Amino acid sequence: MSPTPARITAVDTHDIRFPTSRELDGSDAMNPDPDYSAAYVVLRTDAADGHEGHGFAFTIGRGNEVQVAAIDALRGHLLGRDLDALCADPATLNRDLIGDSQLRWLGPEKGVMHMAIGAVVNAVWDLAAKRAGLPLWRLLAEAEPEWLVGQIDFRYLTDALTPEEALALLRRGREGAGERTARLLERGYPAYTTSPGWLGYDDAKLTRLAARAVADGFTQIKLKVGADLDDDIRRCRVARAVIGPTVRMAVDANQRWDVDEAIRWTKALAAFDPYWIEEPTSPDDILGHAAIRRAVAPVKVATGEHVHNRIVFKQLLQAGALDVVQIDAARVGGVPENLAILLLAAKFGVPVCPHAGGVGLCELVQHLSMFDYVALTGTTEDRVIEYVDHLHDHFLDPVVIRQGHYTAPTAPGFSAALRPEALARYTYPGGEFWAADLDATKKGHAA
Amino acid sequence: MSPTPARITAVDTHDIRFPTSRELDGSDAMNPDPDYSAAYVVLRTDAADGHEGHGFAFTIGRGNEVQVAAIDALRGHLLGRDLDALCADPATLNRDLIGDSQLRWLGPEKGVMHMAIGAVVNAVWDLAAKRAGLPLWRLLAEAEPEWLVGQIDFRYLTDALTPEEALALLRRGREGAGERTARLLERGYPAYTTSPGWLGYDDAKLTRLAARAVADGFTQIKLKVGADLDDDIRRCRVARAVIGPTVRMAVDANQRWDVDEAIRWTKALAAFDPYWIEEPTSPDDILGHAAIRRAVAPVKVATGEHVHNRIVFKQLLQAGALDVVQIDAARVGGVPENLAILLLAAKFGVPVCPHAGGVGLCELVQHLSMFDYVALTGTTEDRVIEYVDHLHDHFLDPVVIRQGHYTAPTAPGFSAALRPEALARYTYPGGEFWAADLDATKKGHAA
Repeated sequence: MSPTPARITAVDTHDIRFPTSRELDGSDAMNPDPDYSAAYVVLRTDAADGHEGHGFAFTIGRGNEVQVAAIDALRGHLLGRDLDALCADPATLNRDLIGDSQLRWLGPEKGVMHMAIGAVVNAVWDLAAKRAGLPLWRLLAEAEPEWLVGQIDFRYLTDALTPEEALALLRRGREGAGERTARLLERGYPAYTTSPGWLGYDDAKLTRLAARAVADGFTQIKLKVGADLDDDIRRCRVARAVIGPTVRMAVDANQRWDVDEAIRWTKALAAFDPYWIEEPTSPDDILGHAAIRRAVAPVKVATGEHVHNRIVFKQLLQAGALDVVQIDAARVGGVPENLAILLLAAKFGVPVCPHAGGVGLCELVQHLSMFDYVALTGTTEDRVIEYVDHLHDHFLDPVVIRQGHYTAPTAPGFSAALRPEALARYTYPGGEFWAADLDATKKGHAA
Repeated sequence: MSPTPARITAVDTHDIRFPTSRELDGSDAMNPDPDYSAAYVVLRTDAADGHEGHGFAFTIGRGNEVQVAAIDALRGHLLGRDLDALCADPATLNRDLIGDSQLRWLGPEKGVMHMAIGAVVNAVWDLAAKRAGLPLWRLLAEAEPEWLVGQIDFRYLTDALTPEEALALLRRGREGAGERTARLLERGYPAYTTSPGWLGYDDAKLTRLAARAVADGFTQIKLKVGADLDDDIRRCRVARAVIGPTVRMAVDANQRWDVDEAIRWTKALAAFDPYWIEEPTSPDDILGHAAIRRAVAPVKVATGEHVHNRIVFKQLLQAGALDVVQIDAARVGGVPENLAILLLAAKFGVPVCPHAGGVGLCELVQHLSMFDYVALTGTTEDRVIEYVDHLHDHFLDPVVIRQGHYTAPTAPGFSAALRPEALARYTYPGGEFWAADLDATKKGHAA
């Protein structure tokens, strides 16, 4: 008699919100007062190992309950799944989720519903990596290329990237992977920091944090721009004076501009040698990014944190619309769609510098860049992962930055798990923090 | 003392699902078993006139509860709004909804959250038209061009269409509007019918319904394709034989193909003289549509029902990617975003043939095409509104088709209101139909 196979027995969701707007951490031209939040999901099983799969979509406050509702809508696809079969071939779940024609209408493959798919798919990969006893980057880097290709949905990509081309890229990427793994474990992966550059900070704080960034070993910082040109010129001047001519300084407009305005504004900042202009306009505007890139060179154009799927990335690359691909671990449909995007970038020879920050985006995305280095492109040249130094303490396996580098995680999984204390305190609206806060607001109104 | 101004006092939401999957109405290559549904919203006020504003997002079943949750998330922006001020300038609400930076993160301007904005914005325009005592098409056609331009969000459009160009188009469009209004009231607006062509129908039903369409005065029909090429060839042959050489026959692949496959498949059907190929690939693939269009001419390329906002339509036009713009009344951010798309199409000289069907999409979108005819492009040449003959009975002001034409609505408003009986019967899961259905399922399992 064979034993009963282990299955997914519960899909728990949590509405987690951190009150970041009170400190102006994370303020930019488009997002003046974000409360960094996570629609958080935990997959539980009846396996003897006790492992859980953790994943989340990142939002910035209001509407996080809608994101949670979207994850709840996927529960029926998860409950009762055979765990061995799922972890051996997560693509079976992907096909069911992306292929659910009724849910597909709500996108397709974009917005709240697609981010929900990303959250649960990432949770499955977290679980698979834990069961394999490997950090996710290592599971990916050591996987058979044929198996990895089988995990990817090539629909709508084959005019730019076929499965055969992907397989060739992955096979070539594996050459020398052992040496690169050793180097990665020793040195880590280069990071850049956005911490000095939030729009809500005054010049003194900008100066202090930019100086600290250089002292800490970062070779690139980033400044938010786009609200007021005179302010931006002053802040770029201040930052450049602090960091000197060789440290790279990226600027980020967070989609604030139309095409012509993006070109004018970027040129007005060119005297301070910005390395890239990030999100100069709508993330949907492929042709707009191409026009901006032609006009502002040698300033590079970067985008991707709001690009909603592989099909838009494909076109940004086909149109020659960007110099830097900024994947986000929790915007698209999880690990397999990000693998497709990494492969597209590799084919077109464009470096990937992930978006991070938020809640846990650094924790997740480091795994993808480390895989890219070890087993796909084989290089970290012109590649850096964004780093923002808040909210990491709430994670069980937080990122560790040393001398401007992400240290390679060694704990099994995708580093996605929040501490139980964080769930208890920041669940909205019933957690300790919010209950007290809402109570104080009520009393304030009564007084 | 001035009287207390009337305000919005309630935002009621309803999860409405019609069990259309039981009849295979609406089946296509991507959507085999849709339960046509609406996340339905009613704005109530304390005005003495008793008018309500009705709007909805259309979905096809599962996930409709997520769409309802997204509308609920907008409630705070609506409750307490001064009614006179809101109806005099609905753009104030639009700016608050689109500009809510925390909600914006969930898109931006795409997917569930954007469709929720469309639903409530359309409800406001329904209310404004009722208060003005005009059907919406007439309110739009008689509005001052300056005011209309002020309703539109030109963000991310100005490289293709400026407010000044829009104003010029609207001013020119008004010339002769009185005569066209009279002609519209007399003849109606041309329609085409998709009713014969659902993928689940056999050849006999296709033959019967195609013959009836021609007898009913339609000059264009549409067939769903994309599941099996041999079937499609047979069905196109059957349909063409029934309708003869002069009635137009469009084909619709519902996003089934990659670029190369779309080209091969469309060419294989070219012998039957399809008028357009609709949704040949992903709605996000602007460059893909452009490549397909270059390859399959003289077959025209049509898309739009899943295009999520004006920025993608802008690029489809800039890239020369389509011959026919298919707006949808309930996918984008409501009336003002559709005005922007109509203006873009007018500027680029591309005809608009709206997507309709679903739940109430015919009822809504007729108003937009009639405005386009009366007060923007001034023509119905090569323009037809999709017509599907189901679910109209559930509406208080259903569309009326005569001799293949939509009759111009005369009742004030946007024709968006469902009958109270429909709400009582098809609310999910508590309405009469679903309660009985779920009960029967339970008993079936128990038996």
